[in-house]
Amino acid sequence: MIPGPTPVPETVLKAIGSHPIGHRSKEFQEIVKRTTEQLRWLHQTTDDVLVITGSGTAAMEAGIINTLSKGDKVICGDNGKFGERWVKVAKAYQLNVEVIKEEWGKPLNPERFRTILEDDDKKEIKAIILTHSETSTGVINDLETISKYVQAHGHALIIADCVTSLGACNVPMDQWGLDVVASGSQKGYMLPPGLSFVAMSQRAWKANQTSNLPKFYLDLAQYQKASLKNSNPFTPGVNLYFGLEKSLEMMQAEGLEAIFSRHSRHRAATQAGIKAMGLNLYAEESCGSPAITAVTTQGIDAEELRKAVRERFDILLAGGQDHLKGKIFRIGHLGFVNDRDILSAIAAIESTLHSLSLLRSELGEGVAAASKVLN
Amino acid sequence: MIPGPTPVPETVLKAIGSHPIGHRSKEFQEIVKRTTEQLRWLHQTTDDVLVITGSGTAAMEAGIINTLSKGDKVICGDNGKFGERWVKVAKAYQLNVEVIKEEWGKPLNPERFRTILEDDDKKEIKAIILTHSETSTGVINDLETISKYVQAHGHALIIADCVTSLGACNVPMDQWGLDVVASGSQKGYMLPPGLSFVAMSQRAWKANQTSNLPKFYLDLAQYQKASLKNSNPFTPGVNLYFGLEKSLEMMQAEGLEAIFSRHSRHRAATQAGIKAMGLNLYAEESCGSPAITAVTTQGIDAEELRKAVRERFDILLAGGQDHLKGKIFRIGHLGFVNDRDILSAIAAIESTLHSLSLLRSELGEGVAAASKVLN
Repeated sequence: MIPGPTPVPETVLKAIGSHPIGHRSKEFQEIVKRTTEQLRWLHQTTDDVLVITGSGTAAMEAGIINTLSKGDKVICGDNGKFGERWVKVAKAYQLNVEVIKEEWGKPLNPERFRTILEDDDKKEIKAIILTHSETSTGVINDLETISKYVQAHGHALIIADCVTSLGACNVPMDQWGLDVVASGSQKGYMLPPGLSFVAMSQRAWKANQTSNLPKFYLDLAQYQKASLKNSNPFTPGVNLYFGLEKSLEMMQAEGLEAIFSRHSRHRAATQAGIKAMGLNLYAEESCGSPAITAVTTQGIDAEELRKAVRERFDILLAGGQDHLKGKIFRIGHLGFVNDRDILSAIAAIESTLHSLSLLRSELGEGVAAASKVLN
Repeated sequence: MIPGPTPVPETVLKAIGSHPIGHRSKEFQEIVKRTTEQLRWLHQTTDDVLVITGSGTAAMEAGIINTLSKGDKVICGDNGKFGERWVKVAKAYQLNVEVIKEEWGKPLNPERFRTILEDDDKKEIKAIILTHSETSTGVINDLETISKYVQAHGHALIIADCVTSLGACNVPMDQWGLDVVASGSQKGYMLPPGLSFVAMSQRAWKANQTSNLPKFYLDLAQYQKASLKNSNPFTPGVNLYFGLEKSLEMMQAEGLEAIFSRHSRHRAATQAGIKAMGLNLYAEESCGSPAITAVTTQGIDAEELRKAVRERFDILLAGGQDHLKGKIFRIGHLGFVNDRDILSAIAAIESTLHSLSLLRSELGEGVAAASKVLN
């Protein structure tokens, strides 16, 4: 129950454990062709979705360095560890970064983006960079609204880290007018880590033509060129591609609406269970991520609790990152997760708190509340 | 029988098909710790060997951009497709590149490196960049001798693409004084593609301190920092790590000397078989790679031959790249390959030539010659 690597279905694992084939073979080109179409379906786009062998950070970095140039003015939204990371990437490439910061646990305020974009008479802002679902805090940012303001500006690109939102909630790339959407295999994709994905709009490709930041392995023009031949510019993670085809087949069989509503139900059930057992949500309910719920332990050592839950129930919860270590824990409900997993996790946390004499409610109230939401 | 992805042992595949675990868990840290020690053994070094989720190109690019700065003078050896690639990487980052070129199929001449290094009174050369085993042509370059000249220069680093030499022949990093050694999982490591490795000498780390090329996902200082905690800076290919541990265990059980002599025997047997069936070696015998043998088909369409061998015997040979397409084919004998595989490949090629009425020797002479070498 961590936000990645997420659980992987047996059929996907079996595909991944198959013998690799030549990455320049016709057989593999067929897989690239099929998965490319599946990825377009998942991203709700007719544009390119390129596959990089690497982590989500590689995909996000690729999106930034393939569309921007040294000294370009960019606005980064930062309300958590991943927001912070994109500021670092932008600075590493000497972009001119302005940060819209919010406290960890709070969502980015779209109005701040609106103001800064409306005030940009000279159209100097080249890109808005932000994280949709902030994994470190369990907050979902209002990407749709911020994207509207970027469209109104008319010149800036919108580059979105959708690593834990894609495949968990609606991210209609074309409809929202997103220019770069980055994601990673070990999240909603129900795969082990090792592949990442970067979708590029036509506007993003146009910006690519003048982008002057140095790159080679992450040079997306090379990926686009190869993708026209259903191939990759560099040797890809062939075995993960086997799994990708299977997991996207499963997602297509379930359907986007069903996937989104499952994640939404699981978020609601988790929130209800946590509150009913007397713990607090770290992020406000209204901006809770469909992928992950962060829980404030108020005086209880979150690391001790995690350890006890793991030892007794073999359920791994995520800890707090950086200054939140020991103060919060996080329940991942992303990807290949069903109702049983939600009830198990809530029941295990509740039972552990009870056994440690730390439960602040009647034993059973948490799991009952979660169960009620699921029903 | 292609030079990558190479065959993967069943035990390794099973490990790769296991359920992923958290990459920040103690369990995974143990795997990182063990594989780091195993990688040092394979590289014959006491220095850092870092693991990147990506292809061999990512590792080689990381080696270059973490040790050099814009405008630095570098000498690239170029006698094949991969030599060409490192020239492109160096130019992408605006290094001042001088190329020592040799015809495809010929080895780089160490004397040319000696001269250029000896003439560099001002010690302007910051690095020599070259490919040890040139996969595109089946040529092994004399890395040991060239490294001696680099040591004599005293200032330049030596950055080596050992993607198809490491785990096939002796590459004693410390003894030869190599500064950067890059390699990839789908080669001698007997793994699917998706992980790559970059070993860094103390001199390389010293150069890293002043290197000013922009990077983030390929920033090796972040990898080194994480490796001190048996961890990774970004979510790694966890499942391939499972396989890495197993394949390195197998390599340790076989022993370096035995691995090198197996590859050497297989190269000799392949060369003998090819010559005995009336075909020519593309690279001279004395500079044949222990990983791959390229064969000139003299008038026979190499692509037709490859297709026929694949259809009839289900054996995949590699084709010629770029201008060599149709003119040569390549037999990979790298990684998890045994005597049976060599005899099968030679016998299948010979039989196919015979069935196409293209065999220029008596049927059986090729496989007999290979067999004699193996015995």
